[in-house]
Amino acid sequence: LTSTLQYGRISVVLVNTRNPLNIGAAARGMSNFGFSDLRLVNPYEPSFREARSAVGAAEVLKSARVYTSVAEAVADCVFVVGTTSGARRDLQQPLELLETGAKSIRKRVRTGKVAILFGSEKRGLSNDDLSHCHLLLRIPTREEHGSMNLGQAVAVCLYELARDGSRAVSSKAGRTSAKAGDLERITALLADTLSLSGYTDARRNGSAEEKLRRMVRRLQLSAKDAETWLGMLRQIIWKLKKSR
Amino acid sequence: LTSTLQYGRISVVLVNTRNPLNIGAAARGMSNFGFSDLRLVNPYEPSFREARSAVGAAEVLKSARVYTSVAEAVADCVFVVGTTSGARRDLQQPLELLETGAKSIRKRVRTGKVAILFGSEKRGLSNDDLSHCHLLLRIPTREEHGSMNLGQAVAVCLYELARDGSRAVSSKAGRTSAKAGDLERITALLADTLSLSGYTDARRNGSAEEKLRRMVRRLQLSAKDAETWLGMLRQIIWKLKKSR
Repeated sequence: LTSTLQYGRISVVLVNTRNPLNIGAAARGMSNFGFSDLRLVNPYEPSFREARSAVGAAEVLKSARVYTSVAEAVADCVFVVGTTSGARRDLQQPLELLETGAKSIRKRVRTGKVAILFGSEKRGLSNDDLSHCHLLLRIPTREEHGSMNLGQAVAVCLYELARDGSRAVSSKAGRTSAKAGDLERITALLADTLSLSGYTDARRNGSAEEKLRRMVRRLQLSAKDAETWLGMLRQIIWKLKKSR
Repeated sequence: LTSTLQYGRISVVLVNTRNPLNIGAAARGMSNFGFSDLRLVNPYEPSFREARSAVGAAEVLKSARVYTSVAEAVADCVFVVGTTSGARRDLQQPLELLETGAKSIRKRVRTGKVAILFGSEKRGLSNDDLSHCHLLLRIPTREEHGSMNLGQAVAVCLYELARDGSRAVSSKAGRTSAKAGDLERITALLADTLSLSGYTDARRNGSAEEKLRRMVRRLQLSAKDAETWLGMLRQIIWKLKKSR
């Protein structure tokens, strides 16, 4: 990841998490997307560091810090963001959808540390937890089923933060297209094959050949594939002629 | 979600999933983002429907269909997308980052069903699985820790698809793409043709067949052209057999 996002300045804060597997999953998602600062407020299982399913999350779990209150956990942060399914209560803070909220976070992280809070599996963040937040974030889930699995919610939020449209690449860019000469040779060989096999009349038929030519162009062959097709057709023709 | 994305036309295909909890998590993520068509190829635990942690995923799990091969699972799809951490091997298909790939999916889904494949927790998708794919998708994780938890990977992909589904531009009456079932038939007929003509050894050779399958997918055939190719190949085979 070669983005300008300051990953070290963004903390994931898990509040009252019950299932240590979810802590492990959150840590793994953090590691996947390049985040490392994990903070836990009153985890239900103090043995969370041994969460077995947390492939590749060992580093993040090892350095995770434990707090007894949200206030303590976010004390060094300039911007505190709460996540919510948005359905439950009369929310007092500004609420933004994830994509817009991520923009706010990217802006604020230039000035200092940012904390993103995730509540417990059953109840989410309490009103007291939310009162520490400058902004609430909602992942755009369906109204009928808004509540996400904790590890999945963390992964989606961090993906959106790390995502950077300008880096989009396509490996297609590198491939060399077949030259028209090769396409024409393929067209001719295919015409011969079809004629030898009885698919088309042996007499050259102008409109059928045009149709074939257009069809071969639609294949958008690479130079390498064109070579393969030429070889295959030559062999098929040789065989068809040999056995006449 | 008031988007124009055709959620009903996008299938999540889980291949050789070992842990039923991951199937439950995938189903929950699907439900969160409005997707419902779940397909399973050889799940390790046939009892996956009872996955306990799958809050709110009951509907998706109930209607999930089980298949014994990738070919069967994607037979009615016009576009098949494989997910990969991108690190492991010499990939043969075009590879796009999630954001760009999601755009391709939104475009293709106007012409028919689209399948998104996720491999097993340990090994991901095999080369044989990948040979069924038109496009590979990579979530932009860190190079040092690319491999994501299955449920998290599904959630991130579906979030990205749903995220700006609303911004998808109106369809310009696209051409109809060939279904995977037809592409598989073309692959098989082409393999027979090459074998009968002596281009390849008569014995089935796994890696040669994968190569052929990938090559046929690269042609991006329309439904109409696929029909024409099927007819041509059948005739060529008939002739090669007749004159033996």
